[in-house]
Amino acid sequence: MDKRKVGLSDTFKENTAPKSFAKNKINGTKYTIAISSAKGGVGKSTFATNIALALKATGSKVGLLDADIYGPSLPKMMSINKKPESKDGKSLIPIEQYGIECMSIGFLVDEETPMIWRGPMVTSAIKTFTEKVLWNNLDFIIVDMPPGTGDTQLTFAQHIKVDGIIIISTPQEIALQDVKRGIKMFDKLKVPIIGLVDNMSFFESDDGKKHKIFGEGGVEKTAKDYNKKFLGKIPINIDLRAAADLGKPLFEKNKNHKISKIFEELAKEIKESFL
Amino acid sequence: MDKRKVGLSDTFKENTAPKSFAKNKINGTKYTIAISSAKGGVGKSTFATNIALALKATGSKVGLLDADIYGPSLPKMMSINKKPESKDGKSLIPIEQYGIECMSIGFLVDEETPMIWRGPMVTSAIKTFTEKVLWNNLDFIIVDMPPGTGDTQLTFAQHIKVDGIIIISTPQEIALQDVKRGIKMFDKLKVPIIGLVDNMSFFESDDGKKHKIFGEGGVEKTAKDYNKKFLGKIPINIDLRAAADLGKPLFEKNKNHKISKIFEELAKEIKESFL
Repeated sequence: MDKRKVGLSDTFKENTAPKSFAKNKINGTKYTIAISSAKGGVGKSTFATNIALALKATGSKVGLLDADIYGPSLPKMMSINKKPESKDGKSLIPIEQYGIECMSIGFLVDEETPMIWRGPMVTSAIKTFTEKVLWNNLDFIIVDMPPGTGDTQLTFAQHIKVDGIIIISTPQEIALQDVKRGIKMFDKLKVPIIGLVDNMSFFESDDGKKHKIFGEGGVEKTAKDYNKKFLGKIPINIDLRAAADLGKPLFEKNKNHKISKIFEELAKEIKESFL
Repeated sequence: MDKRKVGLSDTFKENTAPKSFAKNKINGTKYTIAISSAKGGVGKSTFATNIALALKATGSKVGLLDADIYGPSLPKMMSINKKPESKDGKSLIPIEQYGIECMSIGFLVDEETPMIWRGPMVTSAIKTFTEKVLWNNLDFIIVDMPPGTGDTQLTFAQHIKVDGIIIISTPQEIALQDVKRGIKMFDKLKVPIIGLVDNMSFFESDDGKKHKIFGEGGVEKTAKDYNKKFLGKIPINIDLRAAADLGKPLFEKNKNHKISKIFEELAKEIKESFL
């Protein structure tokens, strides 16, 4: 019997192997942590700004990169209303606010100007923000990701060494469906997931009653089902929302607030797992 | 004095004029109404399913097209768990549920499969849904748009005769910022805006107290500022959310519910303005 195996030639295998991408750190930073959720409107930006400030409070140097090209929130949430400078016409100097280095497409255009852009333009903006910004020796850069599983997510997963993703979701079924898609995407693209946060868990009225507006327990169960860490719950809180609307994140405004304490704990946990 | 004007030749003008696009109706439909908001998570899909059912209740033939490729909600919200048929391998037959003809990318893939696609793939999916679906003589097709101001919005604005956009927002400042960008985009692309809806306006606890979790009045003010019609408020309501999670929209489950009555009124208004 002929023992030769029928198979593909090495050259053919090489030519058809999945492309592997060179993943680089974002220049001037040690660790990249992305705040994600395939779903919009679950509180990613509020989470991103507060966790950045809480990480800073642990003594780390922190930056915030707003990767949501279609819906930048950073300028408003961090009260930044000026354009970044460039010394050579190529690179951009991040803008410091509340001790955090910040960058957003919203710094470059008028607040109400829509970015009516097709995907390749978005990819190009993300590349500029990860390659041409002069981040200054940061321990952590927190990336506020847009909703979806498209160009921005792909660009990060293929070109940037993302050290961990924190996935935010409300507990409602319809949001969790998107979260499951998000988990599958990052697993497929081999980006490590730090864990899942249950945001807008419940609303507590003055009488102390907890209203489970968006349902209950779904995020923790999803974490278990997908073998990911459950990082905890953050209730719906008017102070948290109002602080974001007023341009000073709650953690900056009052770090003794009970919601700020949740961010403080999480930040410590994140710091310990990296530094 | 020589009276000849210095100017561009007609040929040059013709070659450099902005591209004008041939806008077509979606085959098999009379009026296309898109439910939009540059922001995610403000309740577009819940609104889209309920307004579709309320329009049906006025005696119209209605279809629902889920244009959110990255986060399709229609399969779950309308309890549809089968694949659409195709008689010729090219066209797709919509799936009827609760008397509404439906189509979603979610019918074609497993519930948890992420669509890890760059923009051009999204554009191609939207073209399939608007050109190759055999909608059957519909009065209205309701399009549930994704968040953002990118490929999907551009494809609709350039190739489809969209008869009206309904913009949904929560009253919080950060969401309104995205809404303003959305209004500017549709105005720029010359797509008519029917009006703005203030969603998740307030949460009413059992004691009748109204909690303005997301702030107050911002959507109505934005409508005024941009000279658009304000279509009304829809409160945060657990029945509305729970019905969506269970796959039977509130209007289908109980058309006498106080929230269903809001959709009924809006549907009548929409119908009268078109038919």
